[in-house]
Amino acid sequence: MVNVSIIGATGYVGAELLRLLSAHPGVQVNKAVSKSFAGKKLHDIYANFLPEKELDLQEGDGAFGADDFVFLCLPHGQSLAAAPSLLKKGHKVIDLSGDFRYDNTDIYEKWYGIPHSAKEENSEAVYGLPEFFSEEVKKTNFTSNPGCYTTTSILALAPLLREGLVSEKGIVIDAKSGVTGAGRKEKLAFSYCETADNFKAYSVPMHRHTSEIEEQLSKFSGKDVCLLFTPHLLPVKRGILATIYADLMEGVTPGDIAAAYEKYYADAPFTHVLPHSKLPELKYVVGSNNCMIGFEISPRTGKIIVVSCTDNLIKGAAGQAVQNFNLMNGFDETLGLPRTAWYL
Amino acid sequence: MVNVSIIGATGYVGAELLRLLSAHPGVQVNKAVSKSFAGKKLHDIYANFLPEKELDLQEGDGAFGADDFVFLCLPHGQSLAAAPSLLKKGHKVIDLSGDFRYDNTDIYEKWYGIPHSAKEENSEAVYGLPEFFSEEVKKTNFTSNPGCYTTTSILALAPLLREGLVSEKGIVIDAKSGVTGAGRKEKLAFSYCETADNFKAYSVPMHRHTSEIEEQLSKFSGKDVCLLFTPHLLPVKRGILATIYADLMEGVTPGDIAAAYEKYYADAPFTHVLPHSKLPELKYVVGSNNCMIGFEISPRTGKIIVVSCTDNLIKGAAGQAVQNFNLMNGFDETLGLPRTAWYL
Amino acid sequence: MVNVSIIGATGYVGAELLRLLSAHPGVQVNKAVSKSFAGKKLHDIYANFLPEKELDLQEGDGAFGADDFVFLCLPHGQSLAAAPSLLKKGHKVIDLSGDFRYDNTDIYEKWYGIPHSAKEENSEAVYGLPEFFSEEVKKTNFTSNPGCYTTTSILALAPLLREGLVSEKGIVIDAKSGVTGAGRKEKLAFSYCETADNFKAYSVPMHRHTSEIEEQLSKFSGKDVCLLFTPHLLPVKRGILATIYADLMEGVTPGDIAAAYEKYYADAPFTHVLPHSKLPELKYVVGSNNCMIGFEISPRTGKIIVVSCTDNLIKGAAGQAVQNFNLMNGFDETLGLPRTAWYL
Amino acid sequence: MVNVSIIGATGYVGAELLRLLSAHPGVQVNKAVSKSFAGKKLHDIYANFLPEKELDLQEGDGAFGADDFVFLCLPHGQSLAAAPSLLKKGHKVIDLSGDFRYDNTDIYEKWYGIPHSAKEENSEAVYGLPEFFSEEVKKTNFTSNPGCYTTTSILALAPLLREGLVSEKGIVIDAKSGVTGAGRKEKLAFSYCETADNFKAYSVPMHRHTSEIEEQLSKFSGKDVCLLFTPHLLPVKRGILATIYADLMEGVTPGDIAAAYEKYYADAPFTHVLPHSKLPELKYVVGSNNCMIGFEISPRTGKIIVVSCTDNLIKGAAGQAVQNFNLMNGFDETLGLPRTAWYL
Repeated sequence: MVNVSIIGATGYVGAELLRLLSAHPGVQVNKAVSKSFAGKKLHDIYANFLPEKELDLQEGDGAFGADDFVFLCLPHGQSLAAAPSLLKKGHKVIDLSGDFRYDNTDIYEKWYGIPHSAKEENSEAVYGLPEFFSEEVKKTNFTSNPGCYTTTSILALAPLLREGLVSEKGIVIDAKSGVTGAGRKEKLAFSYCETADNFKAYSVPMHRHTSEIEEQLSKFSGKDVCLLFTPHLLPVKRGILATIYADLMEGVTPGDIAAAYEKYYADAPFTHVLPHSKLPELKYVVGSNNCMIGFEISPRTGKIIVVSCTDNLIKGAAGQAVQNFNLMNGFDETLGLPRTAWYL
Repeated sequence: MVNVSIIGATGYVGAELLRLLSAHPGVQVNKAVSKSFAGKKLHDIYANFLPEKELDLQEGDGAFGADDFVFLCLPHGQSLAAAPSLLKKGHKVIDLSGDFRYDNTDIYEKWYGIPHSAKEENSEAVYGLPEFFSEEVKKTNFTSNPGCYTTTSILALAPLLREGLVSEKGIVIDAKSGVTGAGRKEKLAFSYCETADNFKAYSVPMHRHTSEIEEQLSKFSGKDVCLLFTPHLLPVKRGILATIYADLMEGVTPGDIAAAYEKYYADAPFTHVLPHSKLPELKYVVGSNNCMIGFEISPRTGKIIVVSCTDNLIKGAAGQAVQNFNLMNGFDETLGLPRTAWYL
Repeated sequence: MVNVSIIGATGYVGAELLRLLSAHPGVQVNKAVSKSFAGKKLHDIYANFLPEKELDLQEGDGAFGADDFVFLCLPHGQSLAAAPSLLKKGHKVIDLSGDFRYDNTDIYEKWYGIPHSAKEENSEAVYGLPEFFSEEVKKTNFTSNPGCYTTTSILALAPLLREGLVSEKGIVIDAKSGVTGAGRKEKLAFSYCETADNFKAYSVPMHRHTSEIEEQLSKFSGKDVCLLFTPHLLPVKRGILATIYADLMEGVTPGDIAAAYEKYYADAPFTHVLPHSKLPELKYVVGSNNCMIGFEISPRTGKIIVVSCTDNLIKGAAGQAVQNFNLMNGFDETLGLPRTAWYL
Repeated sequence: MVNVSIIGATGYVGAELLRLLSAHPGVQVNKAVSKSFAGKKLHDIYANFLPEKELDLQEGDGAFGADDFVFLCLPHGQSLAAAPSLLKKGHKVIDLSGDFRYDNTDIYEKWYGIPHSAKEENSEAVYGLPEFFSEEVKKTNFTSNPGCYTTTSILALAPLLREGLVSEKGIVIDAKSGVTGAGRKEKLAFSYCETADNFKAYSVPMHRHTSEIEEQLSKFSGKDVCLLFTPHLLPVKRGILATIYADLMEGVTPGDIAAAYEKYYADAPFTHVLPHSKLPELKYVVGSNNCMIGFEISPRTGKIIVVSCTDNLIKGAAGQAVQNFNLMNGFDETLGLPRTAWYL
């Protein structure tokens, strides 16, 4: 039984993490820190926890258990301060923000507009994408959990770029996300009346996640990947679907594509590639920790279309964090994680 | 051509009123007052007005045109101050708030918790429910526009109570409203993620509209009506559907019910009663100024079930205001108003 | 490990049952019968099962395993034929249809319009509402699983009627259900364009579940309960919220109500009563096997308003079936069942 | 007053056309033909027409009025038979199907898989995109109304290609449509439970509209345009948003782009281009006959991103048909058409 503490427990990612952990047989939640709601019970804020054991929301001050495993579900920028001291005290840490996701902190500073004040810890952080880095995650005390758009995009493109099946130039990622991706916000733009029955692109053409996707994919490709990433807001609560366009290298067949995915994901418990011409839909993954990928070839234009789907709160955030947690603690990678989407 | 000014132009009711007036052949919008957005253009806030002639949002200070017809789309309480001075200056006024809807200001003060500071003007205000008071509306300079829940409920019950077909005791109104009924609000409770796929009752058992419904129905009934009104929040933007339960008087037949509705609504251009056993749905009315009413009898329990539907922003607010405006200005009652719901 | 077979595996209830069982540690699914899709794989119909072990959909003919526990997820009427032969062969059976839910088969025949051809088996069936009949369920080989509207309504009213706190006369149940309650249907009335943004009442005033609710509540009350039940269709996929109106007996206090619920549900793992004046919302229960109940008193009208919520596919169908399955097999009642709603 | 007949009156496009025409001051609806519902009233199928004058749904046989203007709202393929005889009898006709949209009937035959049996009439048909062909529309008796995806895409790209600002190679149109685009269908795939909260791509990579977009854009470009068009199904009823990616020619500035749009659309009553970096959203257009276009430049990748929005039932179908009708009958182009989107 691992003692766990969560900092930032009442954002949507924190609450989803607590929901997943409540069904995890190897976890005991020790401390739930919420700056906004310290002094209240978790179920005062999220009534779905009423049937669970009461959990007090606390100030961040004071000691965690010495052996607590700590999840940081803080807004970007705040983990820079929080992570180093926790690591120094010997806690194992998973950070779900963007603060430690870059090899090159210059890129972080440029796209986030924040000076990176924890470069040493940054160099120790493992990028927690288990499909590629599970061995590193198993050995580290500090995992930086990739973002939702990023996970969805990288899992779709990494095998194709590493195997040289598509050009690293001219890639377009047209991504669509549910509203929980924006977090728990009192903003008019995310109110029901402004969002329901609506659809829009946003942060065009320089959404932050562009840079995270590019840095990772450049490593897979061995070449500089410079791509266009266009996020859109879907009138649904959960789920990301990315439609990805890339130029196929000469002579590449659907069989080559399928083989590349098979090479990297044959044993991945949560990443599933559909047969050629079958494309996944949001409802195939929402509620689960899965990423589902499908592809289609357009001989007329020489392009491949890859469709990749995840639940942004699970595989795109809290679920992937639990997957990394399992690896860091010697549990089976899938322990406590939902494998079957809700569908309905 | 009537010159019109609107105070409170950027709330949802104000914006809907401007949308309706933009299609009204007898109206020229002169001034649009918005405390929150003075200095901006209307289309900065509501981009759907981009194709229309630009409209500046202004401070409330300074003069209106001498002959401006003024619509007050202010929150409850603010019309108490605004209406008297406008009336004194000779403007015709329609107030869409709750401030002048009661004959008995004690009831207002009790349910709204606000002292009524304009009792004289209150005594002059006509209750703008054209199905019953169109003659009075035609003659007045000051109309108080009924609320959305209220209109939907009163139109369903008034003929039955006036004709003595149902008991004035034990009435239950179980009403469900779309989210625009709450107005343009930056509140977490009305955010997409908290409202979509959800459903809840609220303000149980003492929602303010209870008192407005009771005062009006008591006049129709000739007896004190004390009823239970339970509003719910539907995950839709527009529309109210009220399911109303009342005890039938001995021996009342469906034909009696149909005849009572026919008696009062045969010539009403926007209130339509379906044949016995046909019940209206939200999509039959949303987008139009109509109220649709259907009923069913339950001999087992001695009750009648009446279902009444409106679009809360149109017949429940801005559309009914235009209907009253037409009456006050000698236009045809239906001028510029949508008669056919969107359905899709 | 209990071997399980499911007949009617590809309706929404069957699919939800398979989803729940896939996370149940004591179950091995042996056979999945689907008349419509025999010969296909489960994931051909429900792609969310792709990450699971493949499951063949089969014809109903041929033998089940001798010790298979059988769930019947058939339309009303078809279980009358299927259940008796299974029971005769010694299978334990849970039937999720309405066919064996009545003590008095005359009521069934009248409200369903089907002759009851299995009266002997009917007399053996236990009504599977574990909050009241868990001891009987533990001992039986044949459980009839209550319906979704029924479970939601009975759990709200049974303690109040048994304790004599409300009148058995004049009860109104105004219920609202998500669209999955209608099942997997190719009907225009349930198409997206006809259902989204819409809301309507249906089957007024004689929906079949009225009779099931009345028969059960009459037993709790000791008096004939004749009530009005009005279902509505919500534009959501899952969830039932029932707003229930009853006349309070003289002098009954909120404390009396709370005490009555406490008396019956203090140890119920899935039925939770909120403190006086707190009312549950759909999102507090959807995704879980919980029923949440809240109440409010209206002294002005002498009525109590009870709001009761469930997930129609879980506590209202497949989840309650698993709860009964657990009891019939000596498992902990909660094994494999989701206790925390999704909320988002 | 023009007498109008509609063939295919009860599909979603036919019903929307009737709704728009009911508010058109220059139209008298003479005959409404519905194969499926002949003998019924329009309001039996679409209850939103209840407040309107009753309209009988009729068989197609028998004569239209000699001077009837005829709208064909038939499925693809059926207009091939219907249009020629109507034209021969001297009716003016607007066809809303794909049957007469191609200059080159070989393309039609290849992409629709139907032999084109009315090539003579096809050569007479004017492509009814008023932004470019209003003069031709004014003079013709036979207009072929462009499709929804097509209108949305062509209006966004035509000025840029004609002015040589973007490459005709490598264009990607990632389009998202509401469910009404699929028509009035009793199909499981379009049921509420399968569509709500879902999102998916479909008909990848060879949706029929690809060929219509390419033929038109090739004429604007003067070069062969071969592009990738990927439609997706949004969980909304109405609206199309297309996110379009194209390679900018060397040195092209945002000012060049704005000028190109200005050149073609300065006087277009329904096509509106936002200032650089402002992107339209669905709710800016749904309910109106407008097309709104915005664009953003990505210097890093050398691409332009154009976002174009329409209401698929209005500017994408029935509204554009009324716009063409106005031109063909000497009315003002905007007569009877909604200019302000609903927004809420």
